[in-house]
Amino acid sequence: MLSGETLSKLASISGPSNLLTAPEDKIAYSYDGTPLLQQSPEAVIRPRSAEEIGALVRLANEAGFSLVARGSGSGLSGGSVPVENCVVVLTNHWNRILEIDEQNLSVWVEPGVITGQLHAAVEAKGLFYPPDPGSAAICTIGGNVAENAGGLRGLKYGVTKDYVLGLEAVLPNGDLVRTGGKSVKDVAGYCLKDWLVGSEGTLGIFTRILLRLVPKPETARTMLVFFDRLADAAEAVSAIIAARILPAALEFLDNTTIRSVEAYAKLGLPTNLEALLMIEVDGRKLVVDEDAEKILAICKKHGAGSVSVAQDDEEAQRLKSARKVAFAALARIRPTTILEDATVPRSLVAPMLEFIQQVAKKRNLTFGNFGHAGDGNLHPTCLTDERDAQEIHQAEAAFEEIYEKAIELGGTITGEHGTGLTKKKFLEKQMGSPAVELMRRIKSVVDPNAIMNPGKIFSPRPRCEGPMPRTREQLQKFLDQGVFV
Amino acid sequence: MLSGETLSKLASISGPSNLLTAPEDKIAYSYDGTPLLQQSPEAVIRPRSAEEIGALVRLANEAGFSLVARGSGSGLSGGSVPVENCVVVLTNHWNRILEIDEQNLSVWVEPGVITGQLHAAVEAKGLFYPPDPGSAAICTIGGNVAENAGGLRGLKYGVTKDYVLGLEAVLPNGDLVRTGGKSVKDVAGYCLKDWLVGSEGTLGIFTRILLRLVPKPETARTMLVFFDRLADAAEAVSAIIAARILPAALEFLDNTTIRSVEAYAKLGLPTNLEALLMIEVDGRKLVVDEDAEKILAICKKHGAGSVSVAQDDEEAQRLKSARKVAFAALARIRPTTILEDATVPRSLVAPMLEFIQQVAKKRNLTFGNFGHAGDGNLHPTCLTDERDAQEIHQAEAAFEEIYEKAIELGGTITGEHGTGLTKKKFLEKQMGSPAVELMRRIKSVVDPNAIMNPGKIFSPRPRCEGPMPRTREQLQKFLDQGVFV
Repeated sequence: MLSGETLSKLASISGPSNLLTAPEDKIAYSYDGTPLLQQSPEAVIRPRSAEEIGALVRLANEAGFSLVARGSGSGLSGGSVPVENCVVVLTNHWNRILEIDEQNLSVWVEPGVITGQLHAAVEAKGLFYPPDPGSAAICTIGGNVAENAGGLRGLKYGVTKDYVLGLEAVLPNGDLVRTGGKSVKDVAGYCLKDWLVGSEGTLGIFTRILLRLVPKPETARTMLVFFDRLADAAEAVSAIIAARILPAALEFLDNTTIRSVEAYAKLGLPTNLEALLMIEVDGRKLVVDEDAEKILAICKKHGAGSVSVAQDDEEAQRLKSARKVAFAALARIRPTTILEDATVPRSLVAPMLEFIQQVAKKRNLTFGNFGHAGDGNLHPTCLTDERDAQEIHQAEAAFEEIYEKAIELGGTITGEHGTGLTKKKFLEKQMGSPAVELMRRIKSVVDPNAIMNPGKIFSPRPRCEGPMPRTREQLQKFLDQGVFV
Repeated sequence: MLSGETLSKLASISGPSNLLTAPEDKIAYSYDGTPLLQQSPEAVIRPRSAEEIGALVRLANEAGFSLVARGSGSGLSGGSVPVENCVVVLTNHWNRILEIDEQNLSVWVEPGVITGQLHAAVEAKGLFYPPDPGSAAICTIGGNVAENAGGLRGLKYGVTKDYVLGLEAVLPNGDLVRTGGKSVKDVAGYCLKDWLVGSEGTLGIFTRILLRLVPKPETARTMLVFFDRLADAAEAVSAIIAARILPAALEFLDNTTIRSVEAYAKLGLPTNLEALLMIEVDGRKLVVDEDAEKILAICKKHGAGSVSVAQDDEEAQRLKSARKVAFAALARIRPTTILEDATVPRSLVAPMLEFIQQVAKKRNLTFGNFGHAGDGNLHPTCLTDERDAQEIHQAEAAFEEIYEKAIELGGTITGEHGTGLTKKKFLEKQMGSPAVELMRRIKSVVDPNAIMNPGKIFSPRPRCEGPMPRTREQLQKFLDQGVFV
């Protein structure tokens, strides 16, 4: 609970109209895109300058509350779900594109800029910001940087981190730091910028972000390729890479997803096939034509059935929508949709998918599988019902098996959604305890009062450390901090 | 001084034949590629496994000595210059390429693999490892990762960091951590991999490195373009970028450098011009031809005089050598060559060069300037004589002005050489004290006994350190190995 004095100080930081404390506001910001997680904040604040963030951080240290930064709340690992006794720091209104520098191929933005709006703004100048998370229409750059968001273009273009040139951030002690700049090359000191990218709001709150741009590809070609057999589709993916072609997108839908998409969007997809690949090549026209032909030949050699190649941009958008609506389409089937992002080296996509199917069958669950086949980043999606405790238990057990398999195959528990709350239980399995202990030590020295998104990524203390709780209340408080999770 | 007991324990770690304590060995490893710095180590050890590194780190903590990791010692900021009471950890014999994974476009290497040898090995399989520091013929991947090395291909392809997929490293407490993997997308926990890249041996010692590869470009075209006026060359660089072309290399030599190169290598360069651009475009043949033509047209429009375009690979190598021998050629002019890497946004290369010329004139110094114009990464190179204390003092003052100007222009004190010993005095000016204080706190929690390369990047406590002289013979040995910067 925040005291009246603290609330009054909060109101003075960004003005009373930017402090929300009404129950309906607190409910609106009590969850993010992650299913099954909810916690009410004490208040919600809308700052709009580094100075305001600095004041907020200093007050949090003094008054002993936590800060959870939030853009659009579209995250899928609970990164922006409130924690106990916290103030949500909203950035989605703090959203100006400050400078597009065409000579130095860079753009300064405020953290709340919507990713899709940035795409449009730079493309209008013949430039290109490649990272394109599925939520680009609503998510913010600040959230993308905090979670190191991925997306469809990872295989050819990399992820958000590869485009962050510089950051201005307020640290947990209230210091404002500037790191990086317009030079592609900068090796002064430790690369604080890369330490903050993907830190999920636990080490700093961004106040300005400098992104790298590239020339906009001259053209793009989109195609859908259908396969009778899932294994053939996986082999075609490997063969495309083996031919030294890197498509801008190389996406995959399984049969369950194809059927859901067709029922939802009526695109005229054949629904009796095991797999669909949505492939996009981009670049110079001459090369794009050549690559598209080579890719179709490779797919046909590997058992592809029918093929649709977009002849214009409108058709390209229609074909792409087969992939884009996958999540929405699957989410209609059952009341609760748990979408994850277990990722494996791309050569192991086929065995991973086979494993997921086995687990689903064994546990009597419905899974739709789709995702970024080109970079091994799958989205196994469990269609379930949170009111059925037994089924949810099975779903959680299934994901545990899936994460373990991903680790066994040299992959990761999370390719693009972040660790947040949903994956922290599995982090040590992937990274080992020395690595997690190192992260914990660094967090504790950077944020000794644990004011920035505490309990995300890992619990503050491992279960064997610290005084043992005595009373039931103390135990509950301990549990609420996530210590035994 | 190491005790007899400690030396005997050291000898048992990698075997007595891999522990060097003779004075001539200690002299050989008492300096690296950086002028004016020298310090004898207590011993030199050649481990060859993570277990040996772990034992060494534990012994260093117990016995109270420091460890300075060193590949080929080609660094230019003093990163591998020994510190007081240290053991040099040599990795250049620990040099196997462990696996080239063509399906997942990645390669596992031991830290001592020579960068140029890695280039050749992956190119033989149609793959490409883009980072190409000037010292590629002798430098090691371990050193490249520790310093986050740049090189000629930064503009189009980025730097070493952009190609590190995974790392295995021993931390200062002896723990072995594995971070990253073959998935391009991996957001589990903090990105420890990116924390270790560029940490200059202060946070961990690498035992295995996983690098990302890309398809080898189908072809490349190299050209030399000469300009009467330096400002025209700078404008041509901006115009090439404005035309949305990203060459693989876009390199610059000023008149002093051109004359030195011609005197040294007799390439038939015109020596009365203010600037030369060495430009290389690579990619698919159709695109390369088109880009090369566009670039030549842009250069001519911006006042280019004569132009040489390589017609075959042999001629390309000859043209490239004009750039590659720049450092060696300049180093012949005076007894001491101080080469730095102040970097500015590429649109500000012309004012930066003008400023360097003014400073040189004011202080009666001879500077050759060359470098990576495409990414603003310049190599202002002072040709001086370390026996002339007054001139060295002027040179140091000139570089101080140059660094300040780079910071003022939004650039960096070091684009690719690292902070090491030579730049640490200027780090706070660039980053601000909160950022440096954060680095210091993190170093102290990760390495509480300060056993890993202490005093590099920043001092544990701020203080001045005196440079040690280095002989001309030592520099020559370094240049003879094919280093071109």
